[in-house]
Amino acid sequence: MKQLQIKVKDGSCPVFVGGNLLAHAGPALRRLGFHTPPVVVTNTRILRWHGKALLSSLEHSFGQVNVIRIGDGERFKTQATLTRIYDGLFRARADRHSWILAFGGGIVGDIAGFAAATFMRGIPYAGVPTTLLSQVDSSVGGKVAINVRHGKNLIGAFHHPSAVLSDVKVLRTLPSRELAAGLYEVIKCGAIRSAALLNYIEKKRDAVMAGDPSALEHVVVEAIRIKADVVAADEREKRERMILNFGHTLGHALETVTRYERFRHGEAVAWGMIAAAELSSAMGMLPKEEALRLVALIRCIEKLPSLRGISAASLWRALQHDKKARDGRLRIVLLRRLGKAQIVDHVDPELLRRFVGRFVEHSS
Amino acid sequence: MKQLQIKVKDGSCPVFVGGNLLAHAGPALRRLGFHTPPVVVTNTRILRWHGKALLSSLEHSFGQVNVIRIGDGERFKTQATLTRIYDGLFRARADRHSWILAFGGGIVGDIAGFAAATFMRGIPYAGVPTTLLSQVDSSVGGKVAINVRHGKNLIGAFHHPSAVLSDVKVLRTLPSRELAAGLYEVIKCGAIRSAALLNYIEKKRDAVMAGDPSALEHVVVEAIRIKADVVAADEREKRERMILNFGHTLGHALETVTRYERFRHGEAVAWGMIAAAELSSAMGMLPKEEALRLVALIRCIEKLPSLRGISAASLWRALQHDKKARDGRLRIVLLRRLGKAQIVDHVDPELLRRFVGRFVEHSS
Repeated sequence: MKQLQIKVKDGSCPVFVGGNLLAHAGPALRRLGFHTPPVVVTNTRILRWHGKALLSSLEHSFGQVNVIRIGDGERFKTQATLTRIYDGLFRARADRHSWILAFGGGIVGDIAGFAAATFMRGIPYAGVPTTLLSQVDSSVGGKVAINVRHGKNLIGAFHHPSAVLSDVKVLRTLPSRELAAGLYEVIKCGAIRSAALLNYIEKKRDAVMAGDPSALEHVVVEAIRIKADVVAADEREKRERMILNFGHTLGHALETVTRYERFRHGEAVAWGMIAAAELSSAMGMLPKEEALRLVALIRCIEKLPSLRGISAASLWRALQHDKKARDGRLRIVLLRRLGKAQIVDHVDPELLRRFVGRFVEHSS
Repeated sequence: MKQLQIKVKDGSCPVFVGGNLLAHAGPALRRLGFHTPPVVVTNTRILRWHGKALLSSLEHSFGQVNVIRIGDGERFKTQATLTRIYDGLFRARADRHSWILAFGGGIVGDIAGFAAATFMRGIPYAGVPTTLLSQVDSSVGGKVAINVRHGKNLIGAFHHPSAVLSDVKVLRTLPSRELAAGLYEVIKCGAIRSAALLNYIEKKRDAVMAGDPSALEHVVVEAIRIKADVVAADEREKRERMILNFGHTLGHALETVTRYERFRHGEAVAWGMIAAAELSSAMGMLPKEEALRLVALIRCIEKLPSLRGISAASLWRALQHDKKARDGRLRIVLLRRLGKAQIVDHVDPELLRRFVGRFVEHSS
């Protein structure tokens, strides 16, 4: 087991990464300063697979624990579910001294975190993330939100968890597509900041995808470290944080034109990274063999949903729309080397348009 | 016109208090660093009385301004109204660079501030408060919230306004009951921290109640100063802030047993201050003549709704319930002198119960 201490606004957040953390969550959280029983927010699937281990440890340490179940899936990240969580909190007689334990993937973390941010003007919450993506994501940044009919994550807050326990053994029950979607996020961290992490994934890819705890522990810890490091650097130099958007320019556009139905976020970003690596190489910034190496690594994780039927024109429109939303600048994160990203502010739009056209054509 | 600079978390909030601020709001807000047109949240009554002055100044400085109207009254401080504000923001194509102008009393400020706290994870807002109470309250503390069926202000956040313009001329259109309710809050500030402010109100009571701008400017500025001072002192000494609850122990209980229907908040606190002054004197803490002076000042502002029909037993139960909600301690703010409050942790419950009984009997 590894412990990290992530600097957050007004303090720091302890993060534990290891195997068998669920069964020891109660004493661990007690040691971290929680004294009253948590209100657990989770979904039925997680509860069936992993509920017993976590809840019995919690009840042993804290006494009776209230559980609020929410629907499973992005379509439940709504105001209606939020109201359901508030109602559950009131039913559990929660007050401003209560705290929430978010037990599940990113959706549970986002909505339970937003409930914590707003219940009685803010109560603490801890996370027990159960997907690779949320284990990498949930301790850094403090972003919590719900979706509204106008779009995703449009209503939300910044509310950092007080502690995160990432049990990598839980990931064994994750479908391999889900595991891969998280691993692309880890690869992104390596691509922008750590060639060593990319080397590791090249070597241990099979172990990671087979759910090997020590391999998973390593990649989760390294990815969190890189993210925390980039965010901390951003406080000194304002642009730094943007490199976390590597692969996101095309990734977002792909999600938009397919209405979030074809790709998981990680998969769209995987395609975006492939495109960004190829563009970096085409522009002479990144040696061709390094681009090929990154593309090969991404493509050998799991088969990506194809780009078939996506028109270059619609993709280009989505990119333009994204650009407008960001003060009219088309800003792209490219690579100079594996492990070294660079923000490029002025890409020739005509060059980019042609590149997108060729990319869609050759990759479908 | 006076300008105050209120220290808030991560910065400071400029507050302007004076006459005719509405008509100069546009240039003032531009000078404070706002560059895009605000989305104004207000209600129809405010808009009819004061909309023209504010909106024409805003449009002159910023171009076309979007206005979101919400219902007038506490019963509209709900999730449904919040959703209406979000919808209005999306319709106005607001993004993370937009800002909200809350134009109205405390209800508008609370719900517009909460919308600002959560729209796209937080956008700035400025306040143009239109009641005496909200002019005194809205710049300090940053509390924003909505009501849910379980109670008032139970869902919310801390989100400080970026600027507050308090136009005291607006208060001329305020019903005198509303003006009095705000003035009790000012008297509270004087009672706990400033005998000079109490002296001033004793002398200028009629001018204040008649809407005299310079008298109103003085009491608003002094009350804000005192509040900001107490909150700042609280950062050094944790208990200090509780003195702002002077009059609130009985005040809350009165609101509860009458289901928030008989008293405005300020009126309930006025009764609470009368009781606290009498108790301070009965316990030998406060000279009797000072207690009488404070009681006389409160009672000559405006006739308070009577306590008729309120049973001492139900009031006592409400007090006990309040106590439970606060970790079982019955903590009361009393006075040592006019202008000098003291937090008392251990009041003999039996003495208090008898006092409440006598108080209700003699005051109805």
